[in-house]
Amino acid sequence: METLHRTHGCGELTREVVGRQVVLNGWVQKRRDLGGLIFIDLRDRSGVVQVVCNPEISPEAAEAADRVRSEYVLAVRGTVVQRSPETVNPRMATGEIEVQCESLVVLNEAKTPPFPIQDDLDVEESVRLKYRYVDLRRPVMQRTLMLRHRAMQAVRSFLDRNGFVEVETPMLTRSTPEGARDYLVPSRVHPGSFYALPQSPQIFKQLLMVAGMERYFQIVRCFRDEDLRADRQPEFTQIDIEVSFMPLEPFISLMEEMVAELFEKTIGIRVERPFPRITYREAMERYGSDKPDLRFGMELVDLSEAVKESSFKVFSGTVARGGKVKAINVKGCAGWSRKEISRWEEEAKNLGAKGLAWIASRDEGLKGPVAKFLSDAEWAKIRELTSCEPGDLLLCVADEQPLVEEVLGELRLRLGRELDLIDKGSFRFAWVTEFPLLEYDEEDGRYYAMHHPFTMPMEEDIPLLDTDPGKVRAQAYDLVLNGYEIGGGSRRIHRREVQEAMFRALGISREEAREKFGFLLEAFEYGAPPHGGIAFGFDRIVMLLAGRNNLRDCIAFPKTASGSCLLTDAPAPVDEHQLKELHISVTNKMSSEDV
Amino acid sequence: METLHRTHGCGELTREVVGRQVVLNGWVQKRRDLGGLIFIDLRDRSGVVQVVCNPEISPEAAEAADRVRSEYVLAVRGTVVQRSPETVNPRMATGEIEVQCESLVVLNEAKTPPFPIQDDLDVEESVRLKYRYVDLRRPVMQRTLMLRHRAMQAVRSFLDRNGFVEVETPMLTRSTPEGARDYLVPSRVHPGSFYALPQSPQIFKQLLMVAGMERYFQIVRCFRDEDLRADRQPEFTQIDIEVSFMPLEPFISLMEEMVAELFEKTIGIRVERPFPRITYREAMERYGSDKPDLRFGMELVDLSEAVKESSFKVFSGTVARGGKVKAINVKGCAGWSRKEISRWEEEAKNLGAKGLAWIASRDEGLKGPVAKFLSDAEWAKIRELTSCEPGDLLLCVADEQPLVEEVLGELRLRLGRELDLIDKGSFRFAWVTEFPLLEYDEEDGRYYAMHHPFTMPMEEDIPLLDTDPGKVRAQAYDLVLNGYEIGGGSRRIHRREVQEAMFRALGISREEAREKFGFLLEAFEYGAPPHGGIAFGFDRIVMLLAGRNNLRDCIAFPKTASGSCLLTDAPAPVDEHQLKELHISVTNKMSSEDV
Repeated sequence: METLHRTHGCGELTREVVGRQVVLNGWVQKRRDLGGLIFIDLRDRSGVVQVVCNPEISPEAAEAADRVRSEYVLAVRGTVVQRSPETVNPRMATGEIEVQCESLVVLNEAKTPPFPIQDDLDVEESVRLKYRYVDLRRPVMQRTLMLRHRAMQAVRSFLDRNGFVEVETPMLTRSTPEGARDYLVPSRVHPGSFYALPQSPQIFKQLLMVAGMERYFQIVRCFRDEDLRADRQPEFTQIDIEVSFMPLEPFISLMEEMVAELFEKTIGIRVERPFPRITYREAMERYGSDKPDLRFGMELVDLSEAVKESSFKVFSGTVARGGKVKAINVKGCAGWSRKEISRWEEEAKNLGAKGLAWIASRDEGLKGPVAKFLSDAEWAKIRELTSCEPGDLLLCVADEQPLVEEVLGELRLRLGRELDLIDKGSFRFAWVTEFPLLEYDEEDGRYYAMHHPFTMPMEEDIPLLDTDPGKVRAQAYDLVLNGYEIGGGSRRIHRREVQEAMFRALGISREEAREKFGFLLEAFEYGAPPHGGIAFGFDRIVMLLAGRNNLRDCIAFPKTASGSCLLTDAPAPVDEHQLKELHISVTNKMSSEDV
Repeated sequence: METLHRTHGCGELTREVVGRQVVLNGWVQKRRDLGGLIFIDLRDRSGVVQVVCNPEISPEAAEAADRVRSEYVLAVRGTVVQRSPETVNPRMATGEIEVQCESLVVLNEAKTPPFPIQDDLDVEESVRLKYRYVDLRRPVMQRTLMLRHRAMQAVRSFLDRNGFVEVETPMLTRSTPEGARDYLVPSRVHPGSFYALPQSPQIFKQLLMVAGMERYFQIVRCFRDEDLRADRQPEFTQIDIEVSFMPLEPFISLMEEMVAELFEKTIGIRVERPFPRITYREAMERYGSDKPDLRFGMELVDLSEAVKESSFKVFSGTVARGGKVKAINVKGCAGWSRKEISRWEEEAKNLGAKGLAWIASRDEGLKGPVAKFLSDAEWAKIRELTSCEPGDLLLCVADEQPLVEEVLGELRLRLGRELDLIDKGSFRFAWVTEFPLLEYDEEDGRYYAMHHPFTMPMEEDIPLLDTDPGKVRAQAYDLVLNGYEIGGGSRRIHRREVQEAMFRALGISREEAREKFGFLLEAFEYGAPPHGGIAFGFDRIVMLLAGRNNLRDCIAFPKTASGSCLLTDAPAPVDEHQLKELHISVTNKMSSEDV
C-alpha cells in the first residue's frame, strides 16, 4: 500500500499553492459522480476541499474513488489547480481551487453515519449523544471544542502572567459537611470508609493560602450529586482562584481584566470595564433576580407607596399587611387581546402569584380590571413611576415582597425573550454584592450559610451575628452575565473570634465545628493570612462565548439529565467480586428502567 | 486598624529600592531581640527580608514587634535602608538591605508550628503530611510546586502551538474491562449501577480521534485502586496525548521536542536529541530492565556461548537446558572481602537466583569458586566479552533467561548506586521499542495484552497473531529517563480485521468483545482514522525535574501507602442515610486499624 503522509490540511489550500503537489488525509463529506468524473469533498479539522478524480489522469484513483462512500477515511495525493471561473464556489473557503487526484488510498471504510455531518441538524439529542464521535465531527461542535480549548489557555496564560500557581488538589477526598450531596467512593483498604469526590476545592484552596501559596488557581473538575436540570451536569469544570494579602478592589479589578482578556482572545469582543455593581437587594428589587439580565430594561417598579390607600383593596390591603405591589411596563403592548393577557396571568399563577393585575394605557383611556379603582392622583403617580406612555401595558403583582419579585422577575425574562427585547450580540456583566450571609431554614429552624461557613461578614455587620443574624451581609460577590451567574466568591474568615461568632449564628457548637471542620480550623491556628477567592463556572462561560444555550453542547462527553452517558452506558452494574472487594453490597437492585 | 496593603514581595527588595517606603505582608520566620532592637525575618512566597523595629523610630511598632512569635502573619510599613558593610548577610538574597519598621500590624497570630519552616528537616513524614499546610511553607516545597506549575504551563504551551486541542474527558465513566482495579462510584439515580473513575482516558481519546479531533491532549487525573508502593499514588496526573494521520517518526520527534522544551523551560537543561532507541529485547539483554538507567555502564554480558562446554557444570548444564549464563563486570572491585561478596550473593538469592558465581581478577590470579574450572580459552573469551581487566570482579548468574536478566539488572542498579557510578546531574533518555504485544498468563492459561487490546502489532508480525501470538511485537514505545518509565504509548488498531485477529489471540469471542468494548468497536466502524498516542507520568517527571526521589514531595496533598490523607483523614465513615440514598450497605465494618 502506498504510504501517503499528509502535507496540508484540507481547509488550508488556497490559490497560493496552485500547482503544488499535496497529500491530504480526511473524511469523505460528499461524493458525486458527474459523467465519469468523481468529485469528493474531503474534510478534516481544518475544513473541506474538493478533490476531482479523473480516470484520464489516474484510472486507479478513479476506480478507488468509485467505491468510496460518506465518511470513508482517505489519503489523497494530487495537484492543486485553479477552478475555472464558472466552477468557483464562493460558499466554500477553498472554493477557488480543487485537487486533481493522482492517487487515492482508502485508509478505512465507514458505515453510513446515523446523521449527516453538518451544522444544521434535526435529530434527537439522544441519538447525537449515543453517536457522540459522529456528532463531534460536525463543524459547529469542533468549533465549540476549539473555543473551549482557547478559553482554557487564555485563562491560564493570564493567571500565569499574574503570578498565580496552578496546584492540583485531590479528587479522592473527604465528604463535605454543610454542602450539597457528595459522590462517594468506597475504599477497599479501609472497609466501611469512603472517599468523596470534591464539590469544589474550597477547603484545599484555603489550606493553600495557609500554606503561603498566596495566588492559587486551578481549572478543575467538581462533582455534585444533585437532581439535574437542563443547565446542570454531575461533573462540571470550574476556574478556581484564591489569593492572600490582596484587598477586594484590586482583586475584583484583576478578575475583570481576566474576563475581558478571555473574551477578547476567544471571540474578539472588547468588554467594557469596570463592570457595574449592584447589591443583592437592589438586584432583587429592580430585576427580581440575583442574576439580572441587563441586556434590556423593563425593570420592576414599586407602586406600594402610590397605591397604599387605593380603593382597589387587593393593592391597599397587601400594602397594609406589609406586602408589596410592583409592576413592569410592557412597552407598546396596550393592545394585547384579552386572550394574550390571560396567558400571562396563567404564567404568573403558575409561578405562585394569586393573580396578575393589568392596566393598559390605550387611546380610549385606561383599561383593565384595576383601572376603574384608580384615582387620578394615583394614576399620575403610577404613570410617573413606571414611565408609562400611551400604548404601554402595566402588569402588576401584589403579595409578599419575595414572591412579587420572583414572579415579576421571571415574567420580565420571558417577556424579554418573546418580545425580542434582548440584544443577543451584547455581553452585559455585573457584580452582585452584599449577599445575605445566612439563610433561615424554616423546616430545620436554623440558619445556613448562603455561600459556606467561612464567608466573611461585612465588617460593620459583624456585631449583628449575635443579635440579628438574618441581617448580616456577606463579603461575597457573584459575577453575572446576560442573566447567568458565571462566578461567585467571597472574602474568607481568617480570624478565630469571627469564625466562632459565625458558628454561634449557625447554631453549631464548638465541638460540632471541630468535628466537622477540625483540620481547617486547626490550620487557621497556625498563621492564616487574610484571603479570599472566586470560582467561575467554566462550562457556562464557554456556552455564552459560543453563543449556545445548552451546556451539553459545550462538553465533549456530557451526561443526560439522569446522569447517564448514552455513549458508554455509564453508570452500569459491576461484577459481584468488585463489590465484595469494596466491602459493600447493593440493597436495591431496581433496574434503571424503573426509576 | 491601619490598612497596610503590600507594595513589594519580601524577596524582591534590593539595593535598587533603598530609600523607598514599602509595605510587606508575610510570616515571621525568626524574631530576635538585640538590646532593645527587634529584628524580624519576614517571609513570603518571594523570599525573606530583615525588618528592624527600633523603638526610637516607632515605639508602637517596637511594642507590637515584641509580642510577635514565629509564623505570626504581619503587615509592615517601613523604609528600605542599606545595611552597614559589617552587617551585610551574603547568605541572604536580600542581605544587603533591611527594612526600618515604621508601622507593624499583626494580621493573625499563630501557634508554635509543629516543625520549623526550613529546607533541611528531620521529622517523620507522617507529621509533615498531617500538617501539610505548614510543610508546604518550606521553601523547597514551594519551589517544587512552582516547578510543577511551570512544567504544566510549558507542556500546554508547546502542545497548543503545535495544534493540539485540550479536551476534558469524563471522570464519572464506565468500568474498564481488562484493566487494573477500578475505583467505583455508586449511582443514586440508577440503583445497583456504578460509575468508575478513569484509569486513563484511553477509550475517550481514541473516540476523539474517530470524532476527527486529530490532535488531542489533556493533563488529567487518573485513578488506579492498586496496592500502593512507594512510587504509586491512588490518583496521579498524566499528560495524555493522541494524534491521527501522523506517522510514527514525526510523532516521536515531536514528543522529543516537547520533552526537551519542558526541560529547558523548567530547569534550563538542554537535552540531546534525537533520543537513543533500544528494543525491549536489547534492553532486557543489556540492562536486565525495560526501563534501563543509562547513566552508567556495567551492562549484562552473555557468557553462554563461552561456557557452554565448561567443566563447571552449573554453567554448562544451564546452557544445555536452554538457559543463560550472564555476567556484570564490577570494575575495580576484585579486592572485595568474602563478606562483601556474600552480601551480594544474599541479594541475588533474595531476588530469586539460585546463587551468584564470582570471578575476581586479582594480581595473584583468578579467584572465586568458578575460577579453577575455567580453561584458559574459556577465560580468554570471558575476559574479552566482559572487558575484564586486572582488578575487576565478575558477578555471574546462570538460570532461565528472564530470571538471569531480572537478577543481574537489579544488582546492576544497586551496585551503581552503592558504588556511586551514577552522574546525578545527567538526564539520559531512551525510547524502548518493539515490546511484546501479548503476555501469557500461566494461571489463566491465556494471553493478555501487555499495553491494551487496541495496540497495533508490528505490520510484519500480524500473521503471527494466529500462529505464534507470543512472538508478536507491538508498535508500542516507552520513554525512559534515568531508570524510570516516564511515558508509554502505541499506535492503535484502526482496522477491523486486525482487531478481530487480536481478539482471537486473546481468546475473546466476538460476542464477548462486543459486550466488553461494544461502543468503541462500533465507533471504529464509522470511519476511524489511523491513530496513536502516548501518556506521560507527570508526577514522576516533576520528581525527576525537581531532583527528588519521593513522589509525595511533588504532589500538594498526597496520600500515604494505604491511600489515606493524613490531613483530612480521608477516607472516612459516612452517615447511614448517605449509603441508603446510594442503595448500598457496608458488608464489613472492620475498622481500618484492623487492616
